[in-house]
Amino acid sequence: MTRPKAFILLIGNELVRGSVADINGSLAARELRRIGFQIAGFEIVGDDDQAIERALRASGERAEVVIVGGGLGPTDDDRTRGAAARFFGRELVFNAEAWENIEDWFQNLKRKPVPDDRRQAEFPAGAEMIPNRHGTAPGFFFRQAQTRYYFLQGVPREFSAFLQEEIIPRLRKEFSLPSPQIFRTLKVFGISEGRVGAIIFGLARAFPQVTVGTRFYFPEIWIDLESEDGEALETVVSRARSDFASHLFGENDETLESLVGMLLAEKGWKLALAESCTGGLIAHRITEVPGSSNYFERGVVTYSNPSKTELLGVAPDLLKKFGAVSAEVAGAMAEGVKKNSKVEIGLSTTGIAGPTGGSPEKPVGLVYFGLATPEGVFTRKELLFGGRDRIKIFASAVALDWLRRYLQGIDD
Amino acid sequence: MTRPKAFILLIGNELVRGSVADINGSLAARELRRIGFQIAGFEIVGDDDQAIERALRASGERAEVVIVGGGLGPTDDDRTRGAAARFFGRELVFNAEAWENIEDWFQNLKRKPVPDDRRQAEFPAGAEMIPNRHGTAPGFFFRQAQTRYYFLQGVPREFSAFLQEEIIPRLRKEFSLPSPQIFRTLKVFGISEGRVGAIIFGLARAFPQVTVGTRFYFPEIWIDLESEDGEALETVVSRARSDFASHLFGENDETLESLVGMLLAEKGWKLALAESCTGGLIAHRITEVPGSSNYFERGVVTYSNPSKTELLGVAPDLLKKFGAVSAEVAGAMAEGVKKNSKVEIGLSTTGIAGPTGGSPEKPVGLVYFGLATPEGVFTRKELLFGGRDRIKIFASAVALDWLRRYLQGIDD
Repeated sequence: MTRPKAFILLIGNELVRGSVADINGSLAARELRRIGFQIAGFEIVGDDDQAIERALRASGERAEVVIVGGGLGPTDDDRTRGAAARFFGRELVFNAEAWENIEDWFQNLKRKPVPDDRRQAEFPAGAEMIPNRHGTAPGFFFRQAQTRYYFLQGVPREFSAFLQEEIIPRLRKEFSLPSPQIFRTLKVFGISEGRVGAIIFGLARAFPQVTVGTRFYFPEIWIDLESEDGEALETVVSRARSDFASHLFGENDETLESLVGMLLAEKGWKLALAESCTGGLIAHRITEVPGSSNYFERGVVTYSNPSKTELLGVAPDLLKKFGAVSAEVAGAMAEGVKKNSKVEIGLSTTGIAGPTGGSPEKPVGLVYFGLATPEGVFTRKELLFGGRDRIKIFASAVALDWLRRYLQGIDD
Repeated sequence: MTRPKAFILLIGNELVRGSVADINGSLAARELRRIGFQIAGFEIVGDDDQAIERALRASGERAEVVIVGGGLGPTDDDRTRGAAARFFGRELVFNAEAWENIEDWFQNLKRKPVPDDRRQAEFPAGAEMIPNRHGTAPGFFFRQAQTRYYFLQGVPREFSAFLQEEIIPRLRKEFSLPSPQIFRTLKVFGISEGRVGAIIFGLARAFPQVTVGTRFYFPEIWIDLESEDGEALETVVSRARSDFASHLFGENDETLESLVGMLLAEKGWKLALAESCTGGLIAHRITEVPGSSNYFERGVVTYSNPSKTELLGVAPDLLKKFGAVSAEVAGAMAEGVKKNSKVEIGLSTTGIAGPTGGSPEKPVGLVYFGLATPEGVFTRKELLFGGRDRIKIFASAVALDWLRRYLQGIDD
């Protein structure tokens, strides 16, 4: 069964000018594909009457469903309603029900609409108003020849809610869709994108009904698999699990930090962090997980030498002899934070995030890690690359992945 | 003088499927506009021969310059070279110089090309190869009728370098461009988007030669101004500075954390952090700034009550009487970290990030802040909204902005 085609048209000067990178389009593509559509393409145009009319025409020639986002607000530069009316050959007419909804919305916020807000209740004659429960501007639907046009507000929070609550259920009803696509994302860390590609494209070759894509979600690599054929998809996933072995750390919404949290909770263990070069990023990631207060006892960001001594008990002699960026200090930091906080796991980082502070012996990107466990203290050294922000992110991933492997009993 | 038109065409299944949101397009739009082009639009199509040919034709009808990103890699799903050759009515021919460059690139990485890599050295006959100094796949240039097509690799790091190092200088030479646009971004925090819009659109009304846009960079609002007329732009900026007063915290690349760092460095003061609900995010933001080790002494993330007592000297009685989420504890945390680390400024947060842990008296989103200074200890209370991640981000911005205001001597 062929999949019906959808086209995504995004309207806004801020998008065409490059002030903002669009995120509505990829969301719409994912949601529409999930229910069985194929995406013919996206187009982005500015708030310009002629450009919008031309784009409405071109997209209608290419798809049965056109999702139009943006340009429905109350200001002068919101051109979509007028351009659509001209393209459909209709007048703009005022819709009393839409205006009531808009007035209600303002009343709930204890504010008053201004005269320009009335524009948001005007639609091309014959269009069906679609109420917006998450903002002022309603959407609308218009069918022209074989194409159904759905017009949505462009504010991402509203676009997303509108799409999922209004448009997707309508499309499911109005189209006889093929069996839904099954999606799976596998997340890999610690091997190159080239090797990931060679492995996954290699093993998917025997399953042409499974579509494979890889993307670099720095510093992780994510593998997107999809198919109508659930059995084939499961076979590819299980072979991938075996081929990637311990490099495959999670699937779908799982993150390194959520996995670490789950593994700690399973053991009833607690974690304490002693960060230097990662500057609090590991603590931030750990505490992004709801419920992390159950297993995260404390973190310290010891940016100065005195703080390493006072908060972690790192001996001044050790700092003097080996330097703050050393395996010895990384180990002492992890051991110190574990001991002081009376937890099972202490994890530490110390390194040179740059751009300054490097030397020939200790270049920018050099990071030592410490892991204090009930079985003893381990240390590890990595030379990472990139700017300051990338070195911090990379180091946080190395640390979390190392802890994940330890908790899973993987022998490196 | 009219601005020449450019169109941006992005090619990739991962984009059309919505697996990845494009970021190359907005970068290209900004860079091209900076040198005097106007952007006719963007289009995104998949790795599909017919779709690419159709899009090359449609974009050529709409612009004098077409920037094409993606589909130049070595694998089966890289279709751009072949589709371009068919659209231009040329054969694909092997370019020995391009192949030498590719071989050199592999040699530098101490790796060997595979046979498929040779595809990256094939271009439509008559195209000009443009070397890629940041990856394997070279770009190319082809002129068809009045339109110049520039083909670039789609990996964002390579796309960006290629655009800036190769394409922009060529366009500057080949086009007689109008006076360059001057861009300015003003960053505002602490007032609603509606009020920001009313103020900035109001004061820009007298300057039609200045283009204004606003965008929500949660929880900040950014105002984009641009004009060819430097004097008019400066007038709008200086009126905005006066109207937004202390809500306008920075311009262009400045961030709350970079400003706080600059202000601390100016005074020769040091900062220590005591975070609970922000979980290390403030420390992470502070340490994103190069050179922050000069003024950031330490941070602690005290997620447990014992850690608040042991690391910050918060009395157990205080925790018992008022609870960890209270003005009293926020003040004691800021005072404790200031005293222990012997710095001029201690900053603290304690709150309920959710989704669980709220109560009618202390709901999710309730956050107390403490600021210990040479003049004494201050506290502050906010009720923030959103999910866990947004509450953390919002609270980190409130804390940094509060510190920024204190350091600038702004009386709230």
